[in-house]
Amino acid sequence: MTNALLTPSQAGERYDLLTPTAMPRAAGFLWNQQMMIQVTCRGYAVAQFMQPEPAKYAYAPNLEAKTFMQPEQPYYAHHPGRFFYIKDEDTGKIFSAPYEPVRAPYDDYSFSVGKSDLQWVIECDGVRAELMLSLPVKDVVELWQLRVINNSGRVRKLSIYPYFPVGYMSWMNQSAEYRADLGGIVATCVTPYQKVADYFKNKNFKDKTFFLHEVNPVAWEAKQETFEGEGGLHNPTALRADVLTCGDARYETPAAILQYRLEMPDQAQQDYRFIFGPAFDDAEISKLRDTYLSASGFAKAQADYAAYIAAGSGCLQIETPDAELNNFVNNWLPRQVFYHGDVNRLTTDPQTRNYLQDNMGMTFIKPEVTRAAFLHALSQQEESGAMPDGILLAEGAELKYINQIPHTDHCVWLPVCLKTYLDETNDYAILQEVVAGHDGKTLSVFERISNAMRWLLQARDYRGLSFIAQGDWCDPMNMVGYKGKGVSGWLSVATAYALNLWADVCAKKSLPDLQQEFIAGAQEVNAAVNKYLWDGEWFGRGITDDDVVFGISKDKEGRIFLNPQSWAILGGAANAEQRKKMIAAVEAQLETPYGVTMLAPAYTAMRDDVGRVTQKHPGSAENGSVYNHAAIFYIYSLFTIAEKDRAYKLLRQMIPGPTEADYLQRGQLPVYIPNYYRGAYHQYPRTAGRSSQLFNTGTVSWVYRCLVEGVFGLQGSERGLQIAPQLPSGWPGAKAVRQFRGAEFHVSIERVNIAATEIRCEGELLSGNCIDNIQAGRSYSVQVLIPL
Amino acid sequence: MTNALLTPSQAGERYDLLTPTAMPRAAGFLWNQQMMIQVTCRGYAVAQFMQPEPAKYAYAPNLEAKTFMQPEQPYYAHHPGRFFYIKDEDTGKIFSAPYEPVRAPYDDYSFSVGKSDLQWVIECDGVRAELMLSLPVKDVVELWQLRVINNSGRVRKLSIYPYFPVGYMSWMNQSAEYRADLGGIVATCVTPYQKVADYFKNKNFKDKTFFLHEVNPVAWEAKQETFEGEGGLHNPTALRADVLTCGDARYETPAAILQYRLEMPDQAQQDYRFIFGPAFDDAEISKLRDTYLSASGFAKAQADYAAYIAAGSGCLQIETPDAELNNFVNNWLPRQVFYHGDVNRLTTDPQTRNYLQDNMGMTFIKPEVTRAAFLHALSQQEESGAMPDGILLAEGAELKYINQIPHTDHCVWLPVCLKTYLDETNDYAILQEVVAGHDGKTLSVFERISNAMRWLLQARDYRGLSFIAQGDWCDPMNMVGYKGKGVSGWLSVATAYALNLWADVCAKKSLPDLQQEFIAGAQEVNAAVNKYLWDGEWFGRGITDDDVVFGISKDKEGRIFLNPQSWAILGGAANAEQRKKMIAAVEAQLETPYGVTMLAPAYTAMRDDVGRVTQKHPGSAENGSVYNHAAIFYIYSLFTIAEKDRAYKLLRQMIPGPTEADYLQRGQLPVYIPNYYRGAYHQYPRTAGRSSQLFNTGTVSWVYRCLVEGVFGLQGSERGLQIAPQLPSGWPGAKAVRQFRGAEFHVSIERVNIAATEIRCEGELLSGNCIDNIQAGRSYSVQVLIPL
Repeated sequence: MTNALLTPSQAGERYDLLTPTAMPRAAGFLWNQQMMIQVTCRGYAVAQFMQPEPAKYAYAPNLEAKTFMQPEQPYYAHHPGRFFYIKDEDTGKIFSAPYEPVRAPYDDYSFSVGKSDLQWVIECDGVRAELMLSLPVKDVVELWQLRVINNSGRVRKLSIYPYFPVGYMSWMNQSAEYRADLGGIVATCVTPYQKVADYFKNKNFKDKTFFLHEVNPVAWEAKQETFEGEGGLHNPTALRADVLTCGDARYETPAAILQYRLEMPDQAQQDYRFIFGPAFDDAEISKLRDTYLSASGFAKAQADYAAYIAAGSGCLQIETPDAELNNFVNNWLPRQVFYHGDVNRLTTDPQTRNYLQDNMGMTFIKPEVTRAAFLHALSQQEESGAMPDGILLAEGAELKYINQIPHTDHCVWLPVCLKTYLDETNDYAILQEVVAGHDGKTLSVFERISNAMRWLLQARDYRGLSFIAQGDWCDPMNMVGYKGKGVSGWLSVATAYALNLWADVCAKKSLPDLQQEFIAGAQEVNAAVNKYLWDGEWFGRGITDDDVVFGISKDKEGRIFLNPQSWAILGGAANAEQRKKMIAAVEAQLETPYGVTMLAPAYTAMRDDVGRVTQKHPGSAENGSVYNHAAIFYIYSLFTIAEKDRAYKLLRQMIPGPTEADYLQRGQLPVYIPNYYRGAYHQYPRTAGRSSQLFNTGTVSWVYRCLVEGVFGLQGSERGLQIAPQLPSGWPGAKAVRQFRGAEFHVSIERVNIAATEIRCEGELLSGNCIDNIQAGRSYSVQVLIPL
Repeated sequence: MTNALLTPSQAGERYDLLTPTAMPRAAGFLWNQQMMIQVTCRGYAVAQFMQPEPAKYAYAPNLEAKTFMQPEQPYYAHHPGRFFYIKDEDTGKIFSAPYEPVRAPYDDYSFSVGKSDLQWVIECDGVRAELMLSLPVKDVVELWQLRVINNSGRVRKLSIYPYFPVGYMSWMNQSAEYRADLGGIVATCVTPYQKVADYFKNKNFKDKTFFLHEVNPVAWEAKQETFEGEGGLHNPTALRADVLTCGDARYETPAAILQYRLEMPDQAQQDYRFIFGPAFDDAEISKLRDTYLSASGFAKAQADYAAYIAAGSGCLQIETPDAELNNFVNNWLPRQVFYHGDVNRLTTDPQTRNYLQDNMGMTFIKPEVTRAAFLHALSQQEESGAMPDGILLAEGAELKYINQIPHTDHCVWLPVCLKTYLDETNDYAILQEVVAGHDGKTLSVFERISNAMRWLLQARDYRGLSFIAQGDWCDPMNMVGYKGKGVSGWLSVATAYALNLWADVCAKKSLPDLQQEFIAGAQEVNAAVNKYLWDGEWFGRGITDDDVVFGISKDKEGRIFLNPQSWAILGGAANAEQRKKMIAAVEAQLETPYGVTMLAPAYTAMRDDVGRVTQKHPGSAENGSVYNHAAIFYIYSLFTIAEKDRAYKLLRQMIPGPTEADYLQRGQLPVYIPNYYRGAYHQYPRTAGRSSQLFNTGTVSWVYRCLVEGVFGLQGSERGLQIAPQLPSGWPGAKAVRQFRGAEFHVSIERVNIAATEIRCEGELLSGNCIDNIQAGRSYSVQVLIPL
């Protein structure tokens, strides 16, 4: 795939965007074990690090709300970013790299998003600026490299001004000054507090922001206002002077600005390195300088970081007729899955369902991390068997935001996510692990999950349907059951699914009584769902506190919800005839060119008995958007009933592309799957399909699972590796390399004129579809022939 | 006073600033009974209204923290503001009124701050734009008037674009569109919530922002990004096109932008009127349109508003040799006092000390408001006699921010502030008013204040000094006594002052036992202060939990604090010799060209046993600033001991001006006294003297009191009006008109060659210095002759 706008590298490990204006929000993201940074093609940045709660070191020009990550945040001239002005000393003309704030006309431009770094090139009037950002694995520090090249065929006199705005750090104390001893500008603030107890939390905060240089500048400026002057950021007043005034900021908005002067012969080039980040004190700044701020320091950090990312490259490499899919699955998808499993979205209290699903994905990358996460989550189980709303990861962490609101679905995710881990690792020994809990009890994993299943069974109303309290998977559906009576159709069918999965585990552990208990529970729930929520063509979403069934055909808005259909397929509530009707209804009402929406028609006004979801903007977040997390459940359920073409079509829609028009509409590079695309396709076609720009999403673990278990059908089991590919009909074949239990499987799948699938391992025809007796360290060649 | 930069009107009711660049933050503020708006000379604005908590209708481009008003906030290109672009259709050249965002070179400019409106003039290339903002008395709506005049001597073709950015309204739901039915652009959002209970609070919020026109435009735009485009706010892309694209904003950042086209003969003019504000629904928008959006609607609102402001013009008009002082005292000071008493700083939970002092000032304007405020405050007294940290003004209001932290000084303000009310009104009947309290008791005002005094007496340590808990008047001195042992030197001497004042009231009520009880208490406290805190030249500030005395000569930072000296003078702890030493120490260590600082030297690092005040930026807020509230206590205390010249000098420093250099350094127009000027004069001379730009301050009530009781010496008493002027030595005389108990006193004071002061009322020489037997409705002529 190539087009004028966007060029993937040969190996698909980079994407180059060739204009900053067509997709102004196009961004890459890098993370390490302590921080995350998202930088746009134009130079704006959002970065945060953990101390232990998420914190900033470059701030907006006004006081920003402390909140969870906001999707689709607008950028504006003074938004935090990383910029380099370049002035021609003879003509006074300026441009800026990457593109903001000057927005000068350029002769050449590219923004290149790599797995381990971000690069920009901008060339104006023969002067070329090449920028690179990378991160080390552990420390909170940005490594910036600027190369200036004179391509103009004549000697050039230039001034180069790195401009790293620091912003409004604190109303209590902020200042910045040049520190010759540290070699750069250091801004200092004090995090405000009012309650004495908070002082003791804050006193170890990294309240300094440093910007250090390798090459000494001729001048500097630390006060934002002085630099900008009346000229504005597109044409700063300070650049009109010969040299910067070397001013400081005293309770004024800090910025880190240096000036270099260069006289460059034609074809000369000059490299600069800088580091930017937060620190507790001068000693820490010095140490970071010593570690990183040199050619060798950068090189080592970059090599270490590349190795770190490579260690998260997943268990599946594919080769299909769809080059863009190959790129995405081989490079970007496992990276995004790894990000989730590695740093838990940079929060200290991930929602329990997110924590379990993110770690479900980690099974395919580092299953030992998944194992530890399960034990950790279960240690916070409540005495009742319920799981808490969030899992605390750091000492002193607290449940925040949405985690202070009671939701009832968290237990469901235990067997759902554990299944993937057991299939992949066959580590049934985890079930015997003993977990000492916050509840004061010492119980095995098996006992704890059984208790969670019993909690689900009892948390039902007189009809046998699951209470929803102030929300289930759908956080903002918060008023269906806040009075304690309303029930969730989705949670009921999901409960049945969880119970059935757990019954399977009981069977494998030869505990038929328990197996029977949970199967009977699932049947009971499914019967109730069919009795109270089957609406003739699909299942309703729930029943409110006041006994109003909703998500049904007589509703004008929110008539049909995706989740109850998907999980009724998974949990067995729907029979074949019902499934057919549901799938048709979904196709007719929820499918759009940008994916399958979560509900339709989107709500246009608050519905008091459903809740906040109905107040959200139509097409945004959960209200009628293509909410990828919901979409992927549906896709997964389709794979379980071998609806392969429909499943693949919807899966493919989730990955940005493949047409240029599609990129432009989504406004996002194909390096991650966002949590949603704007929906309300019929109501607001102009904005439908637009990316939320937020890469935190439980979706990706399931996408990976759909590829492994669905499209390529290379799922683990107790016996070994089961082979059951579901290639879309349009593909003549495909290849995959699958890492599994220490062995490597080179799988080729071909569609040939044959009656039934034939599978050969190392040339030998299998009698069934399972490769067993797998030896770690070995490589296996697997040929799969499937009928036309 | 005139100078090139700033011109006061003849009556001093306006100030005209003649350049937007010299004082870029120069601002005017208007308020009404539900809202406040502060607009800078360049067009940036901060506005809020009550619903009942402070809310916004024009937002920053990112998510702003919900917090108390922030002083000295930076402005930046996309900050909320009110702008009008004007484009020459023949040349394509643009400029903007008032000045931002284009910042075009202009031929004429003025920003005129009036008591009831704000006006701007900008003329570029023969096109003149005259802008006026006014508010009605009650509704939350801005009334904007634009007059365009062609002064260019030729026909001009123009496009006029009002540009009112609405900003990032909400992450949950935001949109904007042109509404032909309502005649303007309406932006709509939903205030996000997560806890169900908050929904019921939010559901009546005014979540719409409207911008309505009188004259129909030719085109419009409601999406910020479309308007700005690649051009940037200084040169918006949308202005390059013939007409705006009439687009909407769907979960995109809203803005209200219209386009008018004009063909203007020379000297032609065209008027436009617009209204901008928040509303609950379309019906409210329609109603506001009908009420205000017409020439007559504007005229009526402006007349009503002028009457409203006139009703708050105070009890003192002066004529002195200092024209700037006259302007300030006759026009601006009572306006600022009225603002505080009228809307309580737009909060629903004013700090108790602020509420009482703000209402102390209101005594001079509307004493009936003060009376009601006292009864209201006392109704929230705790059973122990303590006063709460904040006074709740609205149903459902809660104590927020600093009001959740325990402070120990609130009781002090009861007798201190009540004294002014009693002196002014002679309404001793208030003492018998019965107040049913939150504590379940029904007690008279007298009993309640007596209980408060007893609470102060018992809240002392083994030495007899007052506990400080997590702060006294100085909020951020929060770690002196958080363990329960530390004491406040200031609060101890202030307690003595309060007890003495209350003893006087007991004496007037002929309750000698009580009088004796409180006098004895005061003596005991003062003795303890002298024993433990007299440092040889001044009083220390306190003693920490760990028995460390601070604010004393051996401290390197925070060596001397102003407040303990001021209140030791008021409360009688200091004898004449001590006063002399203290005054000399204050002069040597705390006086600066910009006023007297609150402490010195400013702290440069956290001192764990003093608290947050030591973490603040040196010279900012309480840490070594010229904190006007502290300065005015000192000034008041100097008047009580007839240190008139020193008192006047310091008082005069508090009013911005009088030199141009002084205005420039302070960066503020002389239309209000800010809560502080930057201090740390010796450490940071560049920024010393700079205004905080915050007009919320308990200072102004005391400034008024110092003028009434001190400089002009026209203080009320049980008998009548006492005359004891303390004109500065440099004045040959002065005149004043004093409204008092319904009568009007025309007072002239002359310095003549005479042995002792002579006072004549209606030509008759008084035997003492009190005019008694005052008849309401009468006008009195008073001549005061004072010795040279």
